[in-house]
Amino acid sequence: MAQPLRVAVVGASGYTGLELLRILLRHPRVRLAAVTSEQRAGRSLGECFPSLAGLTELCFTAVDPAALARAADFAFTALPHATSAHVVAKLRKAGLAVADLSADFRLRASAVYEQWYGPHAAPELLGAAVYGLPELHRAALRCADFVAVPGCYPTGALLPIAPFLREGWVSSAPLFIDAKSGVSGAGRTLAEDYLFAELADSCHAYKVGGVHRHVPEIAQEVERLAGAQARVSFVPHLLPIARGIATTVFAQPTREFTDNAARDLLQETYRDEFFVRVLPQGATPRIRSVRGSNFCDVAVVRDAGTGVLILLSALDNLVKGAAGQAVQCMNLMRGFPETEGLLEAPLVP
Amino acid sequence: MAQPLRVAVVGASGYTGLELLRILLRHPRVRLAAVTSEQRAGRSLGECFPSLAGLTELCFTAVDPAALARAADFAFTALPHATSAHVVAKLRKAGLAVADLSADFRLRASAVYEQWYGPHAAPELLGAAVYGLPELHRAALRCADFVAVPGCYPTGALLPIAPFLREGWVSSAPLFIDAKSGVSGAGRTLAEDYLFAELADSCHAYKVGGVHRHVPEIAQEVERLAGAQARVSFVPHLLPIARGIATTVFAQPTREFTDNAARDLLQETYRDEFFVRVLPQGATPRIRSVRGSNFCDVAVVRDAGTGVLILLSALDNLVKGAAGQAVQCMNLMRGFPETEGLLEAPLVP
Amino acid sequence: MAQPLRVAVVGASGYTGLELLRILLRHPRVRLAAVTSEQRAGRSLGECFPSLAGLTELCFTAVDPAALARAADFAFTALPHATSAHVVAKLRKAGLAVADLSADFRLRASAVYEQWYGPHAAPELLGAAVYGLPELHRAALRCADFVAVPGCYPTGALLPIAPFLREGWVSSAPLFIDAKSGVSGAGRTLAEDYLFAELADSCHAYKVGGVHRHVPEIAQEVERLAGAQARVSFVPHLLPIARGIATTVFAQPTREFTDNAARDLLQETYRDEFFVRVLPQGATPRIRSVRGSNFCDVAVVRDAGTGVLILLSALDNLVKGAAGQAVQCMNLMRGFPETEGLLEAPLVP
Amino acid sequence: MAQPLRVAVVGASGYTGLELLRILLRHPRVRLAAVTSEQRAGRSLGECFPSLAGLTELCFTAVDPAALARAADFAFTALPHATSAHVVAKLRKAGLAVADLSADFRLRASAVYEQWYGPHAAPELLGAAVYGLPELHRAALRCADFVAVPGCYPTGALLPIAPFLREGWVSSAPLFIDAKSGVSGAGRTLAEDYLFAELADSCHAYKVGGVHRHVPEIAQEVERLAGAQARVSFVPHLLPIARGIATTVFAQPTREFTDNAARDLLQETYRDEFFVRVLPQGATPRIRSVRGSNFCDVAVVRDAGTGVLILLSALDNLVKGAAGQAVQCMNLMRGFPETEGLLEAPLVP
Repeated sequence: MAQPLRVAVVGASGYTGLELLRILLRHPRVRLAAVTSEQRAGRSLGECFPSLAGLTELCFTAVDPAALARAADFAFTALPHATSAHVVAKLRKAGLAVADLSADFRLRASAVYEQWYGPHAAPELLGAAVYGLPELHRAALRCADFVAVPGCYPTGALLPIAPFLREGWVSSAPLFIDAKSGVSGAGRTLAEDYLFAELADSCHAYKVGGVHRHVPEIAQEVERLAGAQARVSFVPHLLPIARGIATTVFAQPTREFTDNAARDLLQETYRDEFFVRVLPQGATPRIRSVRGSNFCDVAVVRDAGTGVLILLSALDNLVKGAAGQAVQCMNLMRGFPETEGLLEAPLVP
Repeated sequence: MAQPLRVAVVGASGYTGLELLRILLRHPRVRLAAVTSEQRAGRSLGECFPSLAGLTELCFTAVDPAALARAADFAFTALPHATSAHVVAKLRKAGLAVADLSADFRLRASAVYEQWYGPHAAPELLGAAVYGLPELHRAALRCADFVAVPGCYPTGALLPIAPFLREGWVSSAPLFIDAKSGVSGAGRTLAEDYLFAELADSCHAYKVGGVHRHVPEIAQEVERLAGAQARVSFVPHLLPIARGIATTVFAQPTREFTDNAARDLLQETYRDEFFVRVLPQGATPRIRSVRGSNFCDVAVVRDAGTGVLILLSALDNLVKGAAGQAVQCMNLMRGFPETEGLLEAPLVP
Repeated sequence: MAQPLRVAVVGASGYTGLELLRILLRHPRVRLAAVTSEQRAGRSLGECFPSLAGLTELCFTAVDPAALARAADFAFTALPHATSAHVVAKLRKAGLAVADLSADFRLRASAVYEQWYGPHAAPELLGAAVYGLPELHRAALRCADFVAVPGCYPTGALLPIAPFLREGWVSSAPLFIDAKSGVSGAGRTLAEDYLFAELADSCHAYKVGGVHRHVPEIAQEVERLAGAQARVSFVPHLLPIARGIATTVFAQPTREFTDNAARDLLQETYRDEFFVRVLPQGATPRIRSVRGSNFCDVAVVRDAGTGVLILLSALDNLVKGAAGQAVQCMNLMRGFPETEGLLEAPLVP
Repeated sequence: MAQPLRVAVVGASGYTGLELLRILLRHPRVRLAAVTSEQRAGRSLGECFPSLAGLTELCFTAVDPAALARAADFAFTALPHATSAHVVAKLRKAGLAVADLSADFRLRASAVYEQWYGPHAAPELLGAAVYGLPELHRAALRCADFVAVPGCYPTGALLPIAPFLREGWVSSAPLFIDAKSGVSGAGRTLAEDYLFAELADSCHAYKVGGVHRHVPEIAQEVERLAGAQARVSFVPHLLPIARGIATTVFAQPTREFTDNAARDLLQETYRDEFFVRVLPQGATPRIRSVRGSNFCDVAVVRDAGTGVLILLSALDNLVKGAAGQAVQCMNLMRGFPETEGLLEAPLVP
């Protein structure tokens, strides 16, 4: 086997960083070369993440782009937005291939980015990254050096609806998306809202009304798929679980087709996709069936009362919604088998 | 104070029955006169429900309509559908006032009932019961002797959307309703699907496509409110919690109005309703804030991207979605203060 | 009925404060006269605790002992230790009866207090408070004006073991106590350790080795009961639930007695205690069966292999372990029926 | 690389069977040759376990020892006790190496087996199996063809206490063991007690008094370690989580030693053990840190009040407590690297 790819994880103190480490530590083509965290520099990974004790001797370092460029060939950046753009610009300049897990390079239009996030820290790179959803952009990813890994909600919404938008079977305006996410999506944010006793036994919608930052990202990709303007109504909810997103989309058909045809289109589209599993008729995606894995389970059902198409998906927000998808992108970018390091079965129960 | 009302709970071995007992045991105008359960006849309540030990000396009896008619003036029936119609017919004949928590008398059209449940066991009573949603049918409930207590999902869907349908501000066709329910909604059904290890850490949609039996019930009430045909797309989901329902409705406006006007309409409608709390701007209904109580928290938000109205609610499926609502109906039917026995604050955290 | 007792809740921004409000709002002999919180002064209770919206018009005020003394006759103090002693001293001086829920007045020996908490802020009051465990100190509570409400862990450990210590059937040295608590016991502390994603799906021991501050409190009461020195090994654990404590005690018998005799002693002791339920043979205390209530369920089993006595209990740490017990004390102190305001059935499921 | 080992999983319809499949599907030296389930014979694994869809094309077969002997070289049996002994006897006769996950071959004394389980179905094999706890019996496992995989509770209790028993630092009589287990330990048993709404938000002890079947197994191994009679008081508890066991043992020292010496002994013992992680001072084992992995985290603390030694552990009952340990045994039996297929990092959060 060839030399392993030397990989850096930049910004690894949160849950996404930890998940990247979990996956990369078992990846047969990768050698973890550097792991950074400003707050934890100098401490060992096993000390900060007791789950990793015994699995690696690595220590966190501070971010030093020049040192990273010497130590690694490929960087995953899992930093807050704006900070990320800043660091990514330096890493790209230093010659590293980058898979960025922040939101900084997902939106292609600078006006849209500014509207949602404020001034961009590296505007010259806007539009330079490939949108890292392999099932939609595989060809571009194969020759990419720079990838913007999609948000967790967009991944869950786009995968089941993509075939129908692309074929023009449903309207892109409006789409109604109701998503339910585990708490790890909020990262390790220290806020009263995320305390155990605040979230246990509960569920609630948040950022209702089109104000969640994943809205423009979903809309951008819907427009690419449909070749038409998108109007998306997206309501995220918080579930009392750590991981996983279940998504339900209501879409208006634009033509006549049978229920079987709808299922066939979904099945055809994903026939050769390892990570998208189209469920048999009657089954619905369950978070438990994908937990800890890079799978996204999808299903389609026609509503008897309204005729709308109901698209369903379940994925693990930290894997197919973040770290796993980033590794899938890396595999494509480097010509590795696409499933390398990602064949783990879901953790059930 | 007058003589307490002698009340029977018929079919009290499930969670709804237990919840009725929890509420009725503290109700100052009520004396629990009989509690039935075929399987548990002869055993004490405290033995079967350890939570009730020390709070009552009552024992379960078998159903005997004549005996019930002698012992009680008012019956809550919490039996499976069909069985319920059968027993209710006898109790009504014997002169008891009845609040039925099954689905048997919620649908007014016999054709619709048959389509969803099969032949009706007491067709002569179809349409005789008042639909027990006090916020919509208070006047009728005040002079009723026979009430069909609404389903949990319909209650959560109807309360936030009712003012907008009644005023004609939104269309009744289509309505998109995404609901997330705790597991107690399925009762104590002994099926693998309801085992702890199957549901923990998960979430999934079920009965997708317009096949859930609450669909015609929602449609019936939407049509009454809107005075127009309803087309309802309803997708229920199971949450890994015991109690509570969070509902999100997407509704298409039929005219121009400001966001403030929408909030005002909701607030005006429920200004004098004790159990419907309209949340302040920016807040969203949370299951935790209503758990164990008869409150239904509601909110309205206009979606910036699509202009649709998003209606949100949270309630406890066993209280406002079942037993609490039934007691609220009884209070109205008997001329008691409507909040009697229902003033308990939610259990937080 | 006589004038209601005017009650103040001092320090009501945490979970214990909220639970006091939940109980006091339904207490028929009480009028909530003042509720204080430094951070929330001026805001309404319903705004800060959405679960209380619609149930009260009260607003938080800042602590002002003189004003409190004018407004109220009785104060519950739910403040951090040291702060509490400071405020309690002023309230006592101003003439209020006080039930203090902090640890400041539970320990009677000032040396022990200092060893575990540091210098006492009101040493002159040390030993002045009655230890508020009604099942053990009812007579003293009936004529008390000042009560130290026990900790949650001591209540769960002492109730099942008390009869056996008092009768000298088991040794007070050593006692092995393994307790499992819901997270609300830690209050609303904003620390990474209490985030949902850190605690979900997990369980762990903490403060192992005799360093938890409830150790000297348990030991003090064990010694009072046994009339002998106590040596207590106490290991607390955190459960992934919001409320409730399950306690398991291993105690060495000091004489011969049959299993039936052990159960009889427990049953005899608590025959007339409303809030302590001795379970039938074969049943074990479950947190679910007491949740939201002031019950403490207890059981005793002889271990076949070692002959030790295993004492089990379950209680709700916020009710019988804090707010409910405090109200039970108030009822005794004021000559109200002991169960007033505390008759609510547990919330199951 | 050599030919892969042909492996059969016999009795794979429960959670232990599913976990074996999850691990074996990724094991580089293994080829899954047969998977049996009486109820599911003829159906595909992916149909019965949606989490495995896409990962294997295998179908369940019925148990046919002769066919299994042709198809496989090594069998994992995960059947109910008695059934297991019956099948294992046939498989052994047919020449297969066997790792049995039932309780049938853990106890070496037939009288003890009969006392706890009834007549043995293959008494001639009693004592023939090596007790499959590699950290205690590695040498024997290396040349074994037949292994009895330990119970989950014994593994969690024995690993932290073993060094102290072996060195005679603590007494083997009595030992007090308080264990807390996730619900998957009960398998997929369809009983009301295991319904989600019965277990959520709760915790309780069960089989108290020395009646749990893991008691004689723990005692047997304690006696082997201590070379002295064991008296074990074991109280298991059910946690509202799917996976994981946290164990707390109270043990009486028999000689003087410092706290550092105790930690050193633990550390020395497990220095070269990959799967037993001795935590740094001040840390306690957490289920979350081992979930999904074959790790058992252990710690020791001296109790200040009583001088007893408190031993703590956390493991995943389905991995180190069952399927993972079985695979670790297979690795030893076949001369594979001991960690093969078991290097996966725990799933956090």
